[in-house]
Amino acid sequence: MAGDATANGPAAPRSNRPHHADSPYQSIGDFLSNTNNFKIIESTLREGEQFANAYFDTETKIKIATALSDFGVEYIELTSPLASEQSRKDCEAICKLGLKSKILTHVRCTMEDAKVAVATGVDGVDVVIGTSKQLREHSHGKDMAYITKTAIEVIEYIKSEGLEVRFSSEDSFRSDLVDLLSLYKAVDAVGVNRVGVADTVGCATPRQVYDLVRTLRGVVSCDIETHFHNDTGCAIANAYAALEAGATHIDTSVLGIGERNGITPLGGLLARMIVGSHEYVTSRYKLHKLKALEDLVAENVEINIPFNNPVTGFCAFSHKAGIHAKAILNSPSTYEIINPADFGMSRYVHFASRLTGWNAIKSRVEQLGLSMTDDQIKEVTQKIKALADIRPLAVDDADSIIRTYHLELQA
Amino acid sequence: MAGDATANGPAAPRSNRPHHADSPYQSIGDFLSNTNNFKIIESTLREGEQFANAYFDTETKIKIATALSDFGVEYIELTSPLASEQSRKDCEAICKLGLKSKILTHVRCTMEDAKVAVATGVDGVDVVIGTSKQLREHSHGKDMAYITKTAIEVIEYIKSEGLEVRFSSEDSFRSDLVDLLSLYKAVDAVGVNRVGVADTVGCATPRQVYDLVRTLRGVVSCDIETHFHNDTGCAIANAYAALEAGATHIDTSVLGIGERNGITPLGGLLARMIVGSHEYVTSRYKLHKLKALEDLVAENVEINIPFNNPVTGFCAFSHKAGIHAKAILNSPSTYEIINPADFGMSRYVHFASRLTGWNAIKSRVEQLGLSMTDDQIKEVTQKIKALADIRPLAVDDADSIIRTYHLELQA
Repeated sequence: MAGDATANGPAAPRSNRPHHADSPYQSIGDFLSNTNNFKIIESTLREGEQFANAYFDTETKIKIATALSDFGVEYIELTSPLASEQSRKDCEAICKLGLKSKILTHVRCTMEDAKVAVATGVDGVDVVIGTSKQLREHSHGKDMAYITKTAIEVIEYIKSEGLEVRFSSEDSFRSDLVDLLSLYKAVDAVGVNRVGVADTVGCATPRQVYDLVRTLRGVVSCDIETHFHNDTGCAIANAYAALEAGATHIDTSVLGIGERNGITPLGGLLARMIVGSHEYVTSRYKLHKLKALEDLVAENVEINIPFNNPVTGFCAFSHKAGIHAKAILNSPSTYEIINPADFGMSRYVHFASRLTGWNAIKSRVEQLGLSMTDDQIKEVTQKIKALADIRPLAVDDADSIIRTYHLELQA
Repeated sequence: MAGDATANGPAAPRSNRPHHADSPYQSIGDFLSNTNNFKIIESTLREGEQFANAYFDTETKIKIATALSDFGVEYIELTSPLASEQSRKDCEAICKLGLKSKILTHVRCTMEDAKVAVATGVDGVDVVIGTSKQLREHSHGKDMAYITKTAIEVIEYIKSEGLEVRFSSEDSFRSDLVDLLSLYKAVDAVGVNRVGVADTVGCATPRQVYDLVRTLRGVVSCDIETHFHNDTGCAIANAYAALEAGATHIDTSVLGIGERNGITPLGGLLARMIVGSHEYVTSRYKLHKLKALEDLVAENVEINIPFNNPVTGFCAFSHKAGIHAKAILNSPSTYEIINPADFGMSRYVHFASRLTGWNAIKSRVEQLGLSMTDDQIKEVTQKIKALADIRPLAVDDADSIIRTYHLELQA
């Protein structure tokens, strides 16, 4: 990237104070909200394995699971042991690592699947069945009475083995609301640990999520897990809305990899959460390890980190327009809601474009150890903007103009 | 990408019917909502020019403006003519193209800026001033009384010249609510065409957006424009919430490029909107041109299309897990909320991984023109999964296994 300067002189103090502190919109508490009390079910090794490019061998799975546990996620979810023989062996191997995170696997809601899952040594089993009309007709072909009966049988079996159990519907936002609530109520009554709400097709909006989870919060006493696909770009916002409505667990994957364009990304969720829940997020997760974790997964599935990825995208903390740069140099919170230092990242202030203002150039002049008056800085800024109007400028170009101008001043 | 097959045989019918038709959550109307009646202010040539990598020469600006107008956006917003001499000339040149989209430019709220803007020949002027405590202290240093007085003077001048005018606060979600509403009410009273709400730092959540816009809807009678940065990944969801609350205009840029990690992306917004407003979106915008438009901008600013980009990301319509593939082959709406054909895209069903199910292999066998019983297909599926457990499979590998097995059957 051309034309950047790390602004780390005295003009750009890097405070550790959360940037959001002054927001007038975060002062009113909310009884239902779990934005300061949530857990992450990290599904890179389950949902993420359904990503088009994903192929994780045993060694890679162990590396990723270990990195996730070190990062601090509460749960790691693995591909069903019934997917293939190697999937079963890998699941057993990861259970034996003794990681801090609890290990889950994710299977269809049948006794056969549940038995194989329990035998792997996992801490808990996530069972799932499609409940929408679409999936009931075109996938498994079962009715709601059959689904409820099977769910209860499977849940009671897994609990009898001493394991945690989650029961999730699939495609919850296209399921009949009354069917859905009846089913959740029935599984809650037999002591399921968590019910799951899943936007399997990525159609939900934040207000729909809030309404469904809030309604569900009044129907069940168990925990509520949520899973959001990103087809319409709302996976992070939906997760946030779910927590506001009383959900307790959020499914993520590193960079959001999963079926189609994926689910709520781990890093993006934490970018969202840190704004309002700075202490909670920084105390639970080793945010400085986010970039290495994302690089590990990106390399394995052969993708680039998206340019616009929250926090770790190459330009997440780049400031360019003159008025932005000026204010950032005075006080970073003017144009930054996240402190890059919380994630071990740093900010950049562009000073070599036609949009440059003289405050950014002043900062660069100081970084170069040169001495000029404000009027002189304004004059050299005009020279830089004039050249930047004709062609893209690299940082060296701008520095040359500054140094030449400074030399002329001496003469 | 290895291991794909375009599933376009009779097993995967591609209906033009909107996929969302059965959603039980979209049947209740909403008095305030403009999700079926909104306009796009496309800011690739203003906000987008503030993207770290952006340098648009005159020819490129004209190419992008023309493509945006062909695509069908209602407004195109250009960089301030005061940014540089070339910016002013380019603004004049684009005004002279006679595009279908209205041309706007975006300037600070001062008479000096307004006069230069009006002289360029634009259809309207977007004026902006920071209203948060942070920006008032660290950017322009003015108080609310001064801001209101200047805003009225500038608005009346631009209107007297016969142009559209928008007045926006900056950093609206960290501004004092009473200050903000007083200011909007004052500019509405003098006949501003639109007021703008801007989440300049990307801190807003959908419920905050809904609340602020809904409140504002009761205070002003003019149109309401909204602008959302994506620092916490909520820019699309926030735009949707704004429309639900009565906003009329949404700012976008192609791929979301802008300051830091950018704003609401044009394609992502349309992915969100088409789910509930299929007829409105398909009648106004040439969705088949989205990919070419994104490629044009991506090439110019030297970025890759993010792997997870809604609609045009390489895996947006890829299906991999066995149960997903099976259902998709029966009926695409089971796992797709957006019909790829609406955007001139197509879907892929993976059939060469350890997560493959026999239904996907059956579809591939049919595509290859081979004849097998279901039991035979299940047997060859096991062979494919066994090899995929050991190493990544290319489509050729899977085809070879199928063909070899078929040959053995003949023998």
